[in-house]
Amino acid sequence: MTEITEATIAADPKVPAIRITRDFTATPEQLMRAHTDPDLFKLWIGPDSLENKIDYWDARTGGSWRYIAARGGDEFAFHGCFHEVGENKIVQTFTWEGMPEGVSLETIWFEDLGDGRTRLHAESLTNSFEGRDAWLKSGMEVGVNEGYASLQKLVDDGKI
Amino acid sequence: MTEITEATIAADPKVPAIRITRDFTATPEQLMRAHTDPDLFKLWIGPDSLENKIDYWDARTGGSWRYIAARGGDEFAFHGCFHEVGENKIVQTFTWEGMPEGVSLETIWFEDLGDGRTRLHAESLTNSFEGRDAWLKSGMEVGVNEGYASLQKLVDDGKI
Repeated sequence: MTEITEATIAADPKVPAIRITRDFTATPEQLMRAHTDPDLFKLWIGPDSLENKIDYWDARTGGSWRYIAARGGDEFAFHGCFHEVGENKIVQTFTWEGMPEGVSLETIWFEDLGDGRTRLHAESLTNSFEGRDAWLKSGMEVGVNEGYASLQKLVDDGKI
Repeated sequence: MTEITEATIAADPKVPAIRITRDFTATPEQLMRAHTDPDLFKLWIGPDSLENKIDYWDARTGGSWRYIAARGGDEFAFHGCFHEVGENKIVQTFTWEGMPEGVSLETIWFEDLGDGRTRLHAESLTNSFEGRDAWLKSGMEVGVNEGYASLQKLVDDGKI
């Protein structure tokens, strides 16, 4: 079996969305916990060079979240609300507070591949192609790939 | 001065969004109250033929909302979360529970035109042109126009 360890990050051809897929050696339930438990989430999200601090976090349908990623004296804050927290699916909003006008609608779901493997699907929808393409060119793949590698390591180390 | 009393409802040519504008004889503050106070909101939203009941409502950044519109034995429920509730702006998610996979990201803001008049701008972003166009063809303009006429009447009657 070919194992995908890099995330596939693609620009949707029709709508201003980014689509990400990434396979994990983990169950859907473990990936849900990694995305909804703040004490786990802060350990893996984003590039390795940033340390995350949860400001508030209420992972239920109608809840909301905010965290701060810090490196030296630099801080980057992100926040959103949870539109839906289902069994294998999360729909939420997302804003980087450095660009507060930019809001994206994110849908993340987990497809059980069997044999203890799960495919993560993420769709991030914005209201302009320019904004979407700027995000794609920002180097975001570093944070995505480092973050997902950290998530896989938490599973491998029995921490999730 | 030409008064616009019908809403302008337009399909964005580039992205799967609907854009609505509608002028009111009201202040931005009155329109914010009409959109954030549940006891006012339920009096005007949607077509005249439906009666609205608020299930839950917490109009602040990170809050959430749900209401049910009823006509005879038929009930239509809607819910979402508030990504941002600012001074003259609301960013929220929206789902009609009859089609739970369809989630839109709505941005509503109020432009002060002076002389006690305000222009409402609304953007409703979805993740497909097909979904957006089906919504446009659903007869939604009846609910939009009847609702905004009811909102104006609440202002005219001194209830907001």
